[in-house]
Amino acid sequence: MWTELAPIGRDQGSGGYRRYAWTGADADCRTWFQEQAQARGLHYESDHNGNQWAWLGDPTAGDAVVTGSHLDSVPDGGAFDGPLGVVSAFAALDELRSRGVEFTRPLAITNFGDEEGARFGLACVGSRLTAGLLSREQAYALTDADGISLPQAMENAGYDPEHIGPDRERLARVGAYVELHVEQGRALDLTGDAVGIASAIWPHGRWRFDFRGEANHAGTTRLIDRRDPMLTYAETVLAARRAAELAGAVATFGKVSVEPNGVNAIPSLVRGWLDSRAADQSALDTVLAEVERAARERAERDGVDLTVVQESFTPVVEFEHALRDEINRLLGGQAPILGTGAGHDAGILSAAVPTAMLFVRNPTGVSHSPAENAAEDDCTAGVLALADVLEGLACR
Amino acid sequence: MWTELAPIGRDQGSGGYRRYAWTGADADCRTWFQEQAQARGLHYESDHNGNQWAWLGDPTAGDAVVTGSHLDSVPDGGAFDGPLGVVSAFAALDELRSRGVEFTRPLAITNFGDEEGARFGLACVGSRLTAGLLSREQAYALTDADGISLPQAMENAGYDPEHIGPDRERLARVGAYVELHVEQGRALDLTGDAVGIASAIWPHGRWRFDFRGEANHAGTTRLIDRRDPMLTYAETVLAARRAAELAGAVATFGKVSVEPNGVNAIPSLVRGWLDSRAADQSALDTVLAEVERAARERAERDGVDLTVVQESFTPVVEFEHALRDEINRLLGGQAPILGTGAGHDAGILSAAVPTAMLFVRNPTGVSHSPAENAAEDDCTAGVLALADVLEGLACR
Repeated sequence: MWTELAPIGRDQGSGGYRRYAWTGADADCRTWFQEQAQARGLHYESDHNGNQWAWLGDPTAGDAVVTGSHLDSVPDGGAFDGPLGVVSAFAALDELRSRGVEFTRPLAITNFGDEEGARFGLACVGSRLTAGLLSREQAYALTDADGISLPQAMENAGYDPEHIGPDRERLARVGAYVELHVEQGRALDLTGDAVGIASAIWPHGRWRFDFRGEANHAGTTRLIDRRDPMLTYAETVLAARRAAELAGAVATFGKVSVEPNGVNAIPSLVRGWLDSRAADQSALDTVLAEVERAARERAERDGVDLTVVQESFTPVVEFEHALRDEINRLLGGQAPILGTGAGHDAGILSAAVPTAMLFVRNPTGVSHSPAENAAEDDCTAGVLALADVLEGLACR
Repeated sequence: MWTELAPIGRDQGSGGYRRYAWTGADADCRTWFQEQAQARGLHYESDHNGNQWAWLGDPTAGDAVVTGSHLDSVPDGGAFDGPLGVVSAFAALDELRSRGVEFTRPLAITNFGDEEGARFGLACVGSRLTAGLLSREQAYALTDADGISLPQAMENAGYDPEHIGPDRERLARVGAYVELHVEQGRALDLTGDAVGIASAIWPHGRWRFDFRGEANHAGTTRLIDRRDPMLTYAETVLAARRAAELAGAVATFGKVSVEPNGVNAIPSLVRGWLDSRAADQSALDTVLAEVERAARERAERDGVDLTVVQESFTPVVEFEHALRDEINRLLGGQAPILGTGAGHDAGILSAAVPTAMLFVRNPTGVSHSPAENAAEDDCTAGVLALADVLEGLACR
C-alpha cells in the first residue's frame, strides 16, 4: 500500500508532503482510499463533509467499530502523520481476515477530510462538521491564501458542498472510534515500547496576533518616527517562549505574514500565529495572558496597534476510560498510557462517541517534517495491536 | 499628466501602487511615457536595458543635460516616489518652452527601469546595467518569487533581453544628470523649504540572514528538544534596532520568509532581510558587526545554523560638488543641502557622469507607503526649480 501512496503530493525539493484539502494531491489520496476499499470488497461511501468510509457489514446496523485517520498533510509534512492510521486500518483488516475471525459488529475504515487545516487554517474540518462543532456558515466563510473559499474548493474538486454540516445519523452508527497514529513526541522511545495508548489530548488553541504599524521607507525614516510592528512581533515571539518555559507548556510562532514584505519598507502589518498547548487549562490561560501582556507592553512602546483573535480552541479531551481500559486489557495490560499535545479527529469525535487512540513509536519524536519516522517493525507491531483491538471489540 | 498615470497599477484594497518591473502595470507606465514624449515632439527611444529616453535635440551631439527618475514602485508604494521626477521633467520642459528659451545643449528625459527592485530583489537594475555595475550574467541570474528570470520577464513583456549590459556609448552622451525626487524624510518640513538639494547618499546595503533549525510539531515537541529559528530571528530583529540606535544609523527587517510557515509547525527555515544605512561606512560596519554577533550568540543557544549573505551594497555617494554648487547658485543660493538614506539611479550614475538631485518637501516624511504625500504648491515649486536648473545648464 505504501508504494502507491508514497509519491502522491511529495515535493521533490523538500522531500516533504503537500497534501492539502481539495487539491490534486488530496484527490489522488482519495482515489487510493477508494481503490483499497474496493479491492477488499468493502462498501465505499463519501459523506457530505468529504470524509471517506469503507464498510464491512451493514452500515445502518449501528454500534459499528470504526478505525482510520487522515491522508492530508501539513506543508512539507512527513509520510506517517495520518496515512499510518489509514494504512494500518486496511492492514489490520487483512490480518483479521487471515486469522479467519467472525465479525459480530459492523467495521468501518475512515479517511477524515482536511485534518491538518493546512489550506483553510482550521484543523479537523471534516470531523468538526460531522460532529456539529463547525457550522455550515462557519465552513462557508473559510478561505485559503488565494481567497478561494472552502465550498469553491470542494466544487473545483468535483464535490457538492451544498449539504455540508452536522451528520448525526452517520455518527449514531458508530459505537467506538479507534485511531492509530504515529507518536509526535519521544515518550515511547523513552519507555522502550512500540505501541502506546492515549490518555488525553492537551487543551490547545491558535491565536492570531495582528500588529499594525505604519509602512515607511527603511532608509529614510528616523528611528524615533517609526511605528515598526516587526519589533513588537519579535518581542512577542521571545515572550511566548519564556512564558511557556515557566508554565511547563509549549508555545510556538510558526507562521507569519508581513505587509508589504519589502526589503526596504518598514511593515504596515505583521501577523503572527501563536499555537499553544498545556497539560491543563490553567497553565494554558497563564501562558496566553503573559504573552498578550508582553505584546501589549511592547506595542505601546512601538506605537503599534495590537488585536488578538482566537482562531480555534479545543479544551482538554479525556478519552473514554472504559474503552481505554478495555483496549489496555486487549493489549495485555502493559502498554504505556500517554497524554499528547497534538489535536486529532479522535479528539473532535470524543464529544459524540467513545473514542480511543493508539500511538506507534517515533524514534526521534520529529513530526510535521520530512524527517518524521517510524521503524518497519514498530509499524508492524502497530498493525497487530490494532488488529487485536478490532478483534476484541468487533468479533466477540 | 497625473490623471492618466494615477490609476495604473493601483491596488483597490490598499490604495498603494504595485508597479513591478516588466508587469502589465509597468508596461502601461512605459506606454504613458512614450505618449508624453511623442505629444511633445521628442525623439523617443528605449535602450537595451529597458530604460526610456525622450530627446530634445541631437542625442549623439554629446554633453546632454538629462533629467528624470523612475515609474516603478515598491509593493503598495506611494504616488510620488519616482513618478514625481518624470512628471516634473516633462512639466519643466513645458515651462521652458513657455519661457521661449533657446537650448544650447541636447536635453533628455528618462525613465530608468526597475529602480525599486521589488520584483527581482536588486534595486536600480536599469541604471546599474547601463553603468556597467551589474553584468549581463548577474542580471540573467536574477529571478522573481515565482522563479521567473529577468530575461524571461523582459521577453514576456515583449523586450529583447539579448543585449542587456554596459552602455558606454549612451552614457558618454550625458553631460549631467539631475533627478528630482520626493523627499523620503522630514528634513525640508523641519527647515520650512519646498525644495532642497542632495549632498550625498548614505552607504547602504541588504543582507539576508538564513536561520536554519528543524521542522517539528508545535504541539508535541518539548521546548528543550526544539531548534526553533523563529526565536533566533526575533532576537536578531531586536538586536538590529538596538545597534542602529547606538550608532545613529537605521536598520530594518522588513521582509521575512518562513518554511514551512504552518501554524502548528516549528519552522525549519526563517529568512530575514536586513536593510541598514548610516551616514558613514564606519557606523554601518559597526551596526552589521553587532547584529551578526547577537544573531550568532542566540543561534548557538537555539541550536540554529546561521548564514549571512550580502545581497547588495552601495558605498557612500557624494554628488559632484561643482554641479551641486552650480545648481545651488541657479536656485538663489538659499536651498538646504541634505543627505539621504535612500538609493537612487542618480547614485548609481554618479560613478560615470556628474549627477545631482533635487528633493521636494514631504510633509509627513512617509515614503514607500500609500500615505506618501507632497503638497500641490510644493510640486509646482519643484517643477519651477527644475526648470530653472535646466535653463541654467542647457540654455546658456
